[in-house]
Amino acid sequence: MLKVGLLGAGRIGQVHAVNIAGNPRSTLVAVADVYAQAAEKLAAEHGADARSVEDILNDDDIDAVLVASSTDTHSDLIEAATAAGKAVLCEKPVDLSLDRAKKCLAAASTTGKPVMIGFNRRFDPNFAAVRGALVSGEVGKAELLSVTSFDPAPPPVSYIKVSGGLFRDMMIHDFDMSNFLMGDRPVSVRAVGSSIVDPEIGEAGDVDTAVVTMTYADGRIAVIKNSRRAVYGYDQRVELLGSEGLLQAQNMLENTVVKSTTAGVVSAKPTYFFLERYMPAYAAEWEAFVSAVLDGTDMPVTLEDGIAVLAMAEAATESFESGQAVDVSY
Amino acid sequence: MLKVGLLGAGRIGQVHAVNIAGNPRSTLVAVADVYAQAAEKLAAEHGADARSVEDILNDDDIDAVLVASSTDTHSDLIEAATAAGKAVLCEKPVDLSLDRAKKCLAAASTTGKPVMIGFNRRFDPNFAAVRGALVSGEVGKAELLSVTSFDPAPPPVSYIKVSGGLFRDMMIHDFDMSNFLMGDRPVSVRAVGSSIVDPEIGEAGDVDTAVVTMTYADGRIAVIKNSRRAVYGYDQRVELLGSEGLLQAQNMLENTVVKSTTAGVVSAKPTYFFLERYMPAYAAEWEAFVSAVLDGTDMPVTLEDGIAVLAMAEAATESFESGQAVDVSY
Amino acid sequence: MLKVGLLGAGRIGQVHAVNIAGNPRSTLVAVADVYAQAAEKLAAEHGADARSVEDILNDDDIDAVLVASSTDTHSDLIEAATAAGKAVLCEKPVDLSLDRAKKCLAAASTTGKPVMIGFNRRFDPNFAAVRGALVSGEVGKAELLSVTSFDPAPPPVSYIKVSGGLFRDMMIHDFDMSNFLMGDRPVSVRAVGSSIVDPEIGEAGDVDTAVVTMTYADGRIAVIKNSRRAVYGYDQRVELLGSEGLLQAQNMLENTVVKSTTAGVVSAKPTYFFLERYMPAYAAEWEAFVSAVLDGTDMPVTLEDGIAVLAMAEAATESFESGQAVDVSY
Amino acid sequence: MLKVGLLGAGRIGQVHAVNIAGNPRSTLVAVADVYAQAAEKLAAEHGADARSVEDILNDDDIDAVLVASSTDTHSDLIEAATAAGKAVLCEKPVDLSLDRAKKCLAAASTTGKPVMIGFNRRFDPNFAAVRGALVSGEVGKAELLSVTSFDPAPPPVSYIKVSGGLFRDMMIHDFDMSNFLMGDRPVSVRAVGSSIVDPEIGEAGDVDTAVVTMTYADGRIAVIKNSRRAVYGYDQRVELLGSEGLLQAQNMLENTVVKSTTAGVVSAKPTYFFLERYMPAYAAEWEAFVSAVLDGTDMPVTLEDGIAVLAMAEAATESFESGQAVDVSY
Repeated sequence: MLKVGLLGAGRIGQVHAVNIAGNPRSTLVAVADVYAQAAEKLAAEHGADARSVEDILNDDDIDAVLVASSTDTHSDLIEAATAAGKAVLCEKPVDLSLDRAKKCLAAASTTGKPVMIGFNRRFDPNFAAVRGALVSGEVGKAELLSVTSFDPAPPPVSYIKVSGGLFRDMMIHDFDMSNFLMGDRPVSVRAVGSSIVDPEIGEAGDVDTAVVTMTYADGRIAVIKNSRRAVYGYDQRVELLGSEGLLQAQNMLENTVVKSTTAGVVSAKPTYFFLERYMPAYAAEWEAFVSAVLDGTDMPVTLEDGIAVLAMAEAATESFESGQAVDVSY
Repeated sequence: MLKVGLLGAGRIGQVHAVNIAGNPRSTLVAVADVYAQAAEKLAAEHGADARSVEDILNDDDIDAVLVASSTDTHSDLIEAATAAGKAVLCEKPVDLSLDRAKKCLAAASTTGKPVMIGFNRRFDPNFAAVRGALVSGEVGKAELLSVTSFDPAPPPVSYIKVSGGLFRDMMIHDFDMSNFLMGDRPVSVRAVGSSIVDPEIGEAGDVDTAVVTMTYADGRIAVIKNSRRAVYGYDQRVELLGSEGLLQAQNMLENTVVKSTTAGVVSAKPTYFFLERYMPAYAAEWEAFVSAVLDGTDMPVTLEDGIAVLAMAEAATESFESGQAVDVSY
Repeated sequence: MLKVGLLGAGRIGQVHAVNIAGNPRSTLVAVADVYAQAAEKLAAEHGADARSVEDILNDDDIDAVLVASSTDTHSDLIEAATAAGKAVLCEKPVDLSLDRAKKCLAAASTTGKPVMIGFNRRFDPNFAAVRGALVSGEVGKAELLSVTSFDPAPPPVSYIKVSGGLFRDMMIHDFDMSNFLMGDRPVSVRAVGSSIVDPEIGEAGDVDTAVVTMTYADGRIAVIKNSRRAVYGYDQRVELLGSEGLLQAQNMLENTVVKSTTAGVVSAKPTYFFLERYMPAYAAEWEAFVSAVLDGTDMPVTLEDGIAVLAMAEAATESFESGQAVDVSY
Repeated sequence: MLKVGLLGAGRIGQVHAVNIAGNPRSTLVAVADVYAQAAEKLAAEHGADARSVEDILNDDDIDAVLVASSTDTHSDLIEAATAAGKAVLCEKPVDLSLDRAKKCLAAASTTGKPVMIGFNRRFDPNFAAVRGALVSGEVGKAELLSVTSFDPAPPPVSYIKVSGGLFRDMMIHDFDMSNFLMGDRPVSVRAVGSSIVDPEIGEAGDVDTAVVTMTYADGRIAVIKNSRRAVYGYDQRVELLGSEGLLQAQNMLENTVVKSTTAGVVSAKPTYFFLERYMPAYAAEWEAFVSAVLDGTDMPVTLEDGIAVLAMAEAATESFESGQAVDVSY
């Protein structure tokens, strides 16, 4: 039984709390949050205690921590938790700064404690099935990958300003999806983007619509499309052309009902956003972490993976700004 | 908070235990089963006690019981539990004997305690959406309903022999689905059937493939198709033609992946059987029961509903045997 | 090169004229119609002559006639044309009277000339693919067939009154589809129907919504659903459950465009009616007739096939009126 | 009635001959081909004469010519035919050389005769419906376009060597599709490509897999994906994200049959290649040309359109070679 401390009681922390408590091999012992009341409420719901971060890290009875606090605390908490002997599952991104993230990796590595980064989409059953089919050779060798990832609506401009920009904040998931599906990291990226959804996002120095193409050492190509707005709901698809076929993971729809009228044949919309779409993925992600820690197997998503996507985001940002292709250094 | 005793710790009892324990407004207090070990194991998993049925019914601290024991105990337990002042959610069917079920209704009615019958499919989000769209007038008035309900594989012939026959054991769900979607009960039924899947089922006096057509007082028509074998998985669809359109609830698939190769364009299969398909429906069913009891609202599926489908199953059996149309008396 | 006389220059005659003229192995020589002007116009469009039926039948240079005149002339024209030594393709139905149709068969048989009845839907590429997949064993042995056949809108009541009724006029196509797909004819039929779409149809003694179930000597079952109104367009589907899988032929849609908005995910409607849906089937039907005549092979749809569906329609009508199962005598 | 001379009796010339002869407002008068036998055979099939190009151009009785000869003759024939007073429909591309194409435009313009370039895909009913829905505002303003265009199998390397390269030979269709759907031309392009399908294509100096991203003056973005090999058939899709929704044109499938077995739910493959997929588009294209000439309306695809895509192809080639973004000059 894995005894777990949860750092962060916000929206995503609440999702994790349910999974920690619901998993037969883990138990939620303590919750910390900068807002004491939030920590207390969430702890109470799951029969856990509200404590400070320090208390949790110093408690030898706690085996692992899940870091679901704000991005600017991730690196510090990974370092502190691993130094305190905890296994760590940390929400993405590791950090907005690639340099800081690399230092975090160096520090964490010395402790020998396992760290997993929360790229939940790898655990979505649809994307996992695509990867599985590819690995088992069902469409031959991969040649051309497309990742479509549209949010239903843009976040507030105030969020945009501190987000690190679309490439680091939003597309980072798709960079990881590419690495997961292709089983390799690209050598160069080309990025275009614009603020066609909301000019205010452009005024804040960011883009809301972007396309990145990536090339691989062996000639493969990947393309990622992002938009901050798809009014019909969360659009999360991948499509992989292989030498012997095509794999597509389509959207999850709200239900299977089809209505035919004079207006056409109408199906349900995609599930609205990531909480609706990826709830099973979060549970599977936690299950994977628990298994890796308790069984001593490799982490399915490593701190190195979390750093690779930061390097890709940085290269994409540079390419967008310069208009030129940029080689990625990992 | 609803305090609940669970009667029956088999496969379906285990599903209910998770939902009772997981619902924020109910708690699992005690579990009974003819196999003491099964009751103890399930109780332990949810922090409840294993007790006898008598203890549970005599415990004034228990508000409600969920009857998930074998069919031949349902009527007796409904009567005993309502007499003991408990609200009851009983798995379908009420009884294999229509007469016995009617006596049960008479007895339970005198207690004034609420009884719900577990027709879980009404709570499937897809079928519920069909009903919702119909009620809100999205396809005008209903005219012609089709219910397709195929199991992945036939049960053992030993089960068939004690099942009451396909019309009472399997199609009873579809009779309830028809009543739910049409908002009315048919006046006459015509049944055909054969044992084309497995001749041994025919030798046991039952059918494995059947079609029932039903007519309604206002001219509407419904048709139910059943087969004990659909090798591709659990096939559970409805289709309703209205004056202004068609509503279809299609199957839930295992995932959204589509694979295109020289062999064609391949999607995932339907989810394998009722535990995979209807897990969310069981949770929603329990939630509906808890709400009705705690909030004092009407039961969404009544004992009368459970008896209506028995009358329909009896009429269908008679029609199958006589080859003639049979009027249903409720 | 097959030299062809076309008897009937109405809507369906015009469709056939295009196919006769467009087929590389047939040529349209003459057209007859009770409205001389219609015959002249259609003949001129295809470089043919307008002539009387007598002239056409007496012209030894004409090899075949296509009968596309009104139903009440079919039997007489089949008899006269075969007696005159012509191969005949006659539109369905052979006759509204089963007795008359049987006499026609007896008369035509003595001539030894080939007669094909125009059940065009057998030549629809989708239904033909279902039959092909079944024959090649792709889903094992057939067990349960469903035919869904809804018109977009009911015809005028004046037409209904002379149509012979839904079972003879509309469902006759579906009876033939069942015979085609099942490769056999049913032993008994059960019919229900109502005039829920338009009460005036009921006052005219007919139904507009009907379901017929049919049983086969070997235990197979088929069900046909008809409605005179599906506001979303021509709904023409079949579904066949076999021992090793399910085959479905879905509707042809107007195009492949899918539009996702806040209102849902909208596809195009089915093609509107039979001229849109079955145009390729009419061409393939003609090609099949030409090949059979010129190559001396068996007719793909025979006069006997045309009579079988009349017997089925008669039995269905009787079952609808009596409320009882009716055995079909062919 | 438009009297037409057809220059080129190869595979695509044969398609055009059928449409010219089948259109009620045009007639095929003469056919020319460097292989006299091919011209004679095709002419005979449609009651036309085989003649030399010179004879056709000098015949004042011929109103229009359709140029379906080899690419290297296009510019010369457009110039000669317009100088001879003919309306011209010329197969794409205008020329492999942008300079030569521009000179052709200058020459043809002085004649005042209408010239249309055969970008047949604009007339595909699915893509036309996407354009129509966009123009009528059904998804708001366009923001992000994706064009997927995969051939079923690569052509022989001998063809690759004289093709002008993937960007000029294959992607030129997709450049035109982008211009058609976006209603504007991009300002800059970025291209990546590789010869991952067949290394021999790389040795011949070309790519077989490529992605081009394009930016527009108003911030819109388009991405085109090409592969020379999709083993499941011709994959021709577009997807357009707008401010109020998404439009997708999906593939045409061989039929509508769906087969569910233990192996999954299998649909038919896409139609195999352009002759299967675009046959209706070729007929609609010809109809549009005939209407424009006879009714004196604007050509739906102009020589300028044909030159714009050459400029885009040239810029894409340059971007692929340099690895940098290239502004397009039209």
